[in-house]
Amino acid sequence: MDLPNLRWWGWGTLDRTFPLEGRPHFWPTLKEWLGLPEELTERPPVPLEAVRLRPSRLDDPVLASLRRLLGEDTVRLDLRARVEHAFGKAYRDLVRARAGMFPNPPDAVVYPADEGQVAALISWAVDREILLIPFGGGSTVLGAVEPPEDDRPAITVDLARMDQLRWLDRVSHLACIQAGATGPEVEAQLNAQGFTLGHFPQSFEFSTLGGWIATRAAGQTSTGYGKIEDMTQAVRMVTPVGVVETRNTPATATGPRLLDLFVGSEGTLGIITEAVMRVRPLPEVQDYRGFLFRRLEDGIAALRDLMQAGPRPTIARLSDAPETAAFAALAHTHSGLRALLDRVAEWYLGRKGLTPGDEACFLLLGYDGPAREVRALWRRATAVCRDHGGFPLGRRFGESWKRERFVHPYLRDTLLGVGVMVDTLETATTWSNLMHLYEVMTGAVRAALCETDGGPGYVMTHISHIYPWGGSLYTTFLGRQAVGAEIEQWWTVKRAATEAILAAGGTLSHHHGIGRDHASYLDGEIGPVGLRALRAIKDALDPMGVMNPGVLLKA
Amino acid sequence: MDLPNLRWWGWGTLDRTFPLEGRPHFWPTLKEWLGLPEELTERPPVPLEAVRLRPSRLDDPVLASLRRLLGEDTVRLDLRARVEHAFGKAYRDLVRARAGMFPNPPDAVVYPADEGQVAALISWAVDREILLIPFGGGSTVLGAVEPPEDDRPAITVDLARMDQLRWLDRVSHLACIQAGATGPEVEAQLNAQGFTLGHFPQSFEFSTLGGWIATRAAGQTSTGYGKIEDMTQAVRMVTPVGVVETRNTPATATGPRLLDLFVGSEGTLGIITEAVMRVRPLPEVQDYRGFLFRRLEDGIAALRDLMQAGPRPTIARLSDAPETAAFAALAHTHSGLRALLDRVAEWYLGRKGLTPGDEACFLLLGYDGPAREVRALWRRATAVCRDHGGFPLGRRFGESWKRERFVHPYLRDTLLGVGVMVDTLETATTWSNLMHLYEVMTGAVRAALCETDGGPGYVMTHISHIYPWGGSLYTTFLGRQAVGAEIEQWWTVKRAATEAILAAGGTLSHHHGIGRDHASYLDGEIGPVGLRALRAIKDALDPMGVMNPGVLLKA
Repeated sequence: MDLPNLRWWGWGTLDRTFPLEGRPHFWPTLKEWLGLPEELTERPPVPLEAVRLRPSRLDDPVLASLRRLLGEDTVRLDLRARVEHAFGKAYRDLVRARAGMFPNPPDAVVYPADEGQVAALISWAVDREILLIPFGGGSTVLGAVEPPEDDRPAITVDLARMDQLRWLDRVSHLACIQAGATGPEVEAQLNAQGFTLGHFPQSFEFSTLGGWIATRAAGQTSTGYGKIEDMTQAVRMVTPVGVVETRNTPATATGPRLLDLFVGSEGTLGIITEAVMRVRPLPEVQDYRGFLFRRLEDGIAALRDLMQAGPRPTIARLSDAPETAAFAALAHTHSGLRALLDRVAEWYLGRKGLTPGDEACFLLLGYDGPAREVRALWRRATAVCRDHGGFPLGRRFGESWKRERFVHPYLRDTLLGVGVMVDTLETATTWSNLMHLYEVMTGAVRAALCETDGGPGYVMTHISHIYPWGGSLYTTFLGRQAVGAEIEQWWTVKRAATEAILAAGGTLSHHHGIGRDHASYLDGEIGPVGLRALRAIKDALDPMGVMNPGVLLKA
Repeated sequence: MDLPNLRWWGWGTLDRTFPLEGRPHFWPTLKEWLGLPEELTERPPVPLEAVRLRPSRLDDPVLASLRRLLGEDTVRLDLRARVEHAFGKAYRDLVRARAGMFPNPPDAVVYPADEGQVAALISWAVDREILLIPFGGGSTVLGAVEPPEDDRPAITVDLARMDQLRWLDRVSHLACIQAGATGPEVEAQLNAQGFTLGHFPQSFEFSTLGGWIATRAAGQTSTGYGKIEDMTQAVRMVTPVGVVETRNTPATATGPRLLDLFVGSEGTLGIITEAVMRVRPLPEVQDYRGFLFRRLEDGIAALRDLMQAGPRPTIARLSDAPETAAFAALAHTHSGLRALLDRVAEWYLGRKGLTPGDEACFLLLGYDGPAREVRALWRRATAVCRDHGGFPLGRRFGESWKRERFVHPYLRDTLLGVGVMVDTLETATTWSNLMHLYEVMTGAVRAALCETDGGPGYVMTHISHIYPWGGSLYTTFLGRQAVGAEIEQWWTVKRAATEAILAAGGTLSHHHGIGRDHASYLDGEIGPVGLRALRAIKDALDPMGVMNPGVLLKA
């Protein structure tokens, strides 16, 4: 039902970690950048046995009735289940988990087998005023799966058992998939029939279709394959007032599009049980390559050209100078042919006045498709990049990016273990506002890091989801942890960043969602009339307020 | 403020008509198909002077207050203004207008100058419980601008004065345009700066940006440029509880996407005053060509290939055999070189076993873009069409389609004048369900035509908005009018078609909307939970129910 060795205090599974062997520059560089002491003190998480949880508030008759509803072994109250489902994977979640602080764990964790059980469970919970917290992979970074401070008991609904491809329409390139399928489960079932969804968020291995849809997620190849909302043709959702299903149609003009209310509803209107997804034949090749640009602005101009005049890439990820320097610091020491190639590349770059760590910016660019077509696209794309001074680094950088595309979250655990605060922020805006937003937001984060004794800190950003009309910004910030005040420190930075984003015209989130952390800022995004509309829908579909309260809309 | 010579009982302006000269086959063929008498009786519309309207229910103090609010000359009560705004352009609207039957004309027509006046007007109307009917070009075919049977007076809000391009962001390819701009006003202002919106519905000359957005419209080139919702990046709307503006961002993950509530709201939540639209540089060429396919299924297979494997066309419009035959019947007699070309084409077609009027189907296919790129796209597209047995007819058919792309609605007036019922229906579904839906829907229409003495009737269909996952069906039906019972006859056909569409898995509308005519069927599309959500939003944003009541949601 669950992976046996989930890292309840961090990312992924206990048997894996970010491999730092063969990367000699990493620690020295990091210590210099963050002003860390030469000798780092390891601060391990508390052992699971030492965690003390509030006892479940569900009494025996209620539990007996729940077990009659769902079956004996799919209602769990054990420490591990409750701890694993108490938080998402935000920085502040991991800080609390490592310290064994679980103020509001779920009172039970249940695993419905099918939509019928989901419907029965919701009506059972409404009757008893018990809160339900829908749970996919639990990778939220905004507190969207954390039970609220509330007198009512809370049950987490883990959809892990609902992971099947229900049908594939090969003619229409559509697949009906259950909401609890994780990334690997989605892709394995589709790949077996020659198709792919093409949604690869960094959380891919530990997030689910339902979670992606509920949060309006974006995968690394969203530039080519679209965000999850672009891939979602129809959903089925069980609400406290009944099941709702949107029409399986490529487009419609039947009033406001309700599909877009349910996509992004973050478990607050009901539980998405399955969705009809737009799928594609597996691409023959995925040809991803690296480029280096003199300045961020040049790289942005190339991306804009590619989106407005073509050829539109499948993936584009442009790092600013600090992130490019971080890649260099994290690089493997190569030997033999590889080292030679490195030196040749460096020599070329030097001749062109490009040195990583300076203002140079790394671009990962890629095309999926039939081999012949991809070759033709690359000829055009290379010309566009060269027009903007881009220096081609070849496929090697694309291949190494592919190998490491899902492992970076493990590095965060390593850093948290030695007293480094590390978190990410993301937003989006128009091309004309992108540099302004970038400067205002990263400036606010740097200032807040200094203010909270986390400084000087390190702030790095990439642009990784692009459109003809603009793009997203994804910022990682690192600083020294304020020991004993980690959460307050983080909130200071988060608040500064969020206010800067809204003031500079960015959207509150491009693909992480609202959750609990952004709920008090939603007003700044959609205004009082927008909030009024959202509250009305919430009250209409969840009149008792049992579905994930406090997420999306402030309690 | 208004065009001086609008045809209040029909389409467009009084100085224009569908040119039937030089099309000798038209009347004989139509008479044969519909079983019309040899001598057709002209039934002209009643003259405007003969129309008697219910006097305006707005008394002098109320009118005086309205004039203080908006200005003296922008509040109209004259017969012409009230008649022109009493209906949209549906078949049943024109039948009633020609007969001088205007049961619920607006009590006044007003023309606000800006968003401030719109806001003042809405709050004025809410205070007095006066209904407001937002009006763009009035081209709705679903009764969306007709005031309801209601004790409360109704004022039609014509946005004609709000027609400006407010700003153009050349870097981000975005333009902020006021809602009252008609198609030609939108394009003229953008074209002057080298851009285009690319939205060309058949109603282009007499419909507005706000109307397109409020109904989720689709233009003839939607396959390449997208439906209006794909082009709409942000909107501003004045509701009875305040102004709401969605964020100008290429994408967002801030909960349910409210933009998709406002797009498609059909004037029932408020009045859209302006929108940020995604625009494109004017294409260097628009290369549209004709093809002939042996059977409808072959053409559909070619369209599916083009959308799923490329190259994606800008425009694709595949006519079934009856529509192809109708084109032939409507064709000009050519002479000289053209006639020769025709004969050569016919000879080729004959050799391939293709005769229009048989099972052969006409496809209009086109690509917009830089000349060089379009040539390359055409090489690939031609190969795809040939693979499915498509016979290329060249650019001539594309050019003649372009010339006549907006004139067909005039022909409807001609037909209504001689006792022919003519109306259209549209829907969409997945590729795998398209032929099934086509057969069920057209079968239901044919049966209903016979049942209502309109038979045998003529039913013809095209597929004109396509996606990787499916396409739309657009059906035109003609029959003999049941004199004296025209509306009942039409409702019988409409009901049969709508029920068939829902039963066969189609969407209630792909791009016309809900209006009044589809409102009682919306339940079949979105179910009781969906309706509950819509009603909650309506009650939250329009608590007094003054905004276009009875449209979208049944009163």
